[in-house]
Amino acid sequence: MPLNDNREVTPWEVSESLGEGDYLRIAREFGAGIIDNDLRNRLERLAGGTNPFLDQGVFFAHRDLDLVLNDVENGNGFYLYTGRGPSGKMHLGHLLPFMFTRWLQKSFDVNLIIQITDDEKYLFRDLEWKELSEVTRNNILDILSLGFDPQKTHILIDSLNGSTLYRRAVEVSRHINVTLSKAVFGFQDSDNVGKYFFTSIQSVPAFLVSSLLGRNVRCLIPHAIDQDPHFKVSRDVFPKLGYLKPSSIMSKFLPSLKGGGKMSSSDPNSGIFLDDSPQVVRKKIMKYAFSGGRDTAEEQRKYGANPDVDFSFNVYRLIEEDQAKVSRIREDYRTGAMLSGELKTMVAEKISQVLAQLKEKREETVESYEEFLFSEERLIDSFQ
Amino acid sequence: MPLNDNREVTPWEVSESLGEGDYLRIAREFGAGIIDNDLRNRLERLAGGTNPFLDQGVFFAHRDLDLVLNDVENGNGFYLYTGRGPSGKMHLGHLLPFMFTRWLQKSFDVNLIIQITDDEKYLFRDLEWKELSEVTRNNILDILSLGFDPQKTHILIDSLNGSTLYRRAVEVSRHINVTLSKAVFGFQDSDNVGKYFFTSIQSVPAFLVSSLLGRNVRCLIPHAIDQDPHFKVSRDVFPKLGYLKPSSIMSKFLPSLKGGGKMSSSDPNSGIFLDDSPQVVRKKIMKYAFSGGRDTAEEQRKYGANPDVDFSFNVYRLIEEDQAKVSRIREDYRTGAMLSGELKTMVAEKISQVLAQLKEKREETVESYEEFLFSEERLIDSFQ
Repeated sequence: MPLNDNREVTPWEVSESLGEGDYLRIAREFGAGIIDNDLRNRLERLAGGTNPFLDQGVFFAHRDLDLVLNDVENGNGFYLYTGRGPSGKMHLGHLLPFMFTRWLQKSFDVNLIIQITDDEKYLFRDLEWKELSEVTRNNILDILSLGFDPQKTHILIDSLNGSTLYRRAVEVSRHINVTLSKAVFGFQDSDNVGKYFFTSIQSVPAFLVSSLLGRNVRCLIPHAIDQDPHFKVSRDVFPKLGYLKPSSIMSKFLPSLKGGGKMSSSDPNSGIFLDDSPQVVRKKIMKYAFSGGRDTAEEQRKYGANPDVDFSFNVYRLIEEDQAKVSRIREDYRTGAMLSGELKTMVAEKISQVLAQLKEKREETVESYEEFLFSEERLIDSFQ
Repeated sequence: MPLNDNREVTPWEVSESLGEGDYLRIAREFGAGIIDNDLRNRLERLAGGTNPFLDQGVFFAHRDLDLVLNDVENGNGFYLYTGRGPSGKMHLGHLLPFMFTRWLQKSFDVNLIIQITDDEKYLFRDLEWKELSEVTRNNILDILSLGFDPQKTHILIDSLNGSTLYRRAVEVSRHINVTLSKAVFGFQDSDNVGKYFFTSIQSVPAFLVSSLLGRNVRCLIPHAIDQDPHFKVSRDVFPKLGYLKPSSIMSKFLPSLKGGGKMSSSDPNSGIFLDDSPQVVRKKIMKYAFSGGRDTAEEQRKYGANPDVDFSFNVYRLIEEDQAKVSRIREDYRTGAMLSGELKTMVAEKISQVLAQLKEKREETVESYEEFLFSEERLIDSFQ
């Protein structure tokens, strides 16, 4: 979907360096709603607690989130669906949105489908199954290390769950033509037909529960805003199939270590890997992390820093449980009372702490891996 | 694929009234080979018997049939794959090609995959699953009533076997773009994306055995010539995936009861249904069957009939075991020694005889239905 100024935001291409104003404009151009204070308060009240991803404005836009909250209040309930296109090692930036999803699952005690779109990577990135199968397993372990509810978490792998997905994707695909795909995703005639079909596959988990149970259950999809075109199409198609439109809660991109748009998996210094040692984390933060500080300590003492563009602060504000402390540090940093070096040292330590916890949990998860994998029976059971 | 004279032959559109010369031209334009006497003799010699579908020129064209016969001779073997887009009740005309496939299976003692493309009907004919599921079951029973080998016959239903099909269709689809699909199938931008993806699904059984066994086994596809565009695309793509090009043996269309091109399921008088009573068969043949005879008995005695365009004779020559008798009758009919009424009476009885046998066998088949359904394990086992 081209923005008015000709920069592109599609699920496969994101222009660099989006600022706050850009995000608001993207949301407006996509036709999404902005999460205002009232809606955020209502969500947090029903969740029984606050969340930094909301309070810090990282999850900032939505479609029909209010309808989800109505269904919480009236006892109909809902379920969560999110996904990952498996590739390379996971960065901290890849994992952060899953932390928010985990919070939603815990707070509302709901089922969650995690779709692993290995077919997407096969079709769009020319990766091969053998490579993808290893990456997929590792990515899943990384995600699960966050501690999702094993009874209510269902990992659906596109290349393996075709009997669930294909038939239902066919239903969706009957309502999507090439003209629409080109307009929404910017495809050309030279693009392969698997790409055109893929959005139908990606839409299935958003009505899968309703399809399996034979009654409508609302689906809430936490995702980065670049995935919105997929679900905008779903929202047009689902009512034609007798299903509810999916609701979305959408995030900005986490800035990459060096600043700019989405983190990249290909550059080892573009992000913090989950298996980076404390030494490596420290080095990356100190050497590469884009700083909102000034060029000299003197200037910073005098003029203060810009926390909003500072990679270290942006990660810190999401992983620190004590949000009052985040506010204090933000203020100190912004006013020049705290220097970049001090901030970076503290954040590097905090990140390494989080990574150590994840690593420990990951080792436990290896054994229970299979329990999380999707089956139609288990999904149906978990709604009984 | 438009013919040079602007008539269309695609898997979904066939111009009416194709004559012998048209078929030869279609084959030539498609780039297929014609089955000459040498090739037919070699096939029948290796099969250990003759077959009317070959001798009468109904299966008349091929791709790489000689390579299949090489693989028979050198002990590598091969397997068969054919399919059916389920719809309505089956006509005798739908079933006849399966008789030829059964002969191939029996003669060479080989495995056979029968793909039921209910997804195709969902996407191209706007049918719904509920309706398709009933039709599918009935069509399968009709096909099985011919008596396929239960150990070596594998019925694959697209909507149910997605876990086998989708992942592999994705592999194929990476090599097919929209430009190619438009050129080969005549699709437009207004066509749904499921249609574009479908040919990849239809191609999977042609390399499925090789994919499951991890070694190449040649596939021979008996099909009506209108399906050739699908497999022509497969032949371009498979080598890129490390698989053998599929071989084909292609038939003309059986003329419809009233003459002209493909039989239609929607007009009850356009063909003989498998559950038609002897009375109905007789009535349809007498009243509707397109005749190659003359307007009056006198003229026919004098000038003779044209057996080649005569529906009754065209069916008879394929279902009569005694091919010497077929030759005698052809000669009598052609020269005027036999009148249309006599021929029709005899053929109606023969057809009712065949239908009665099929009906009996069909009732037995209902109980063993499940045994024929595809599973990856069973397919692999049947090649051990």
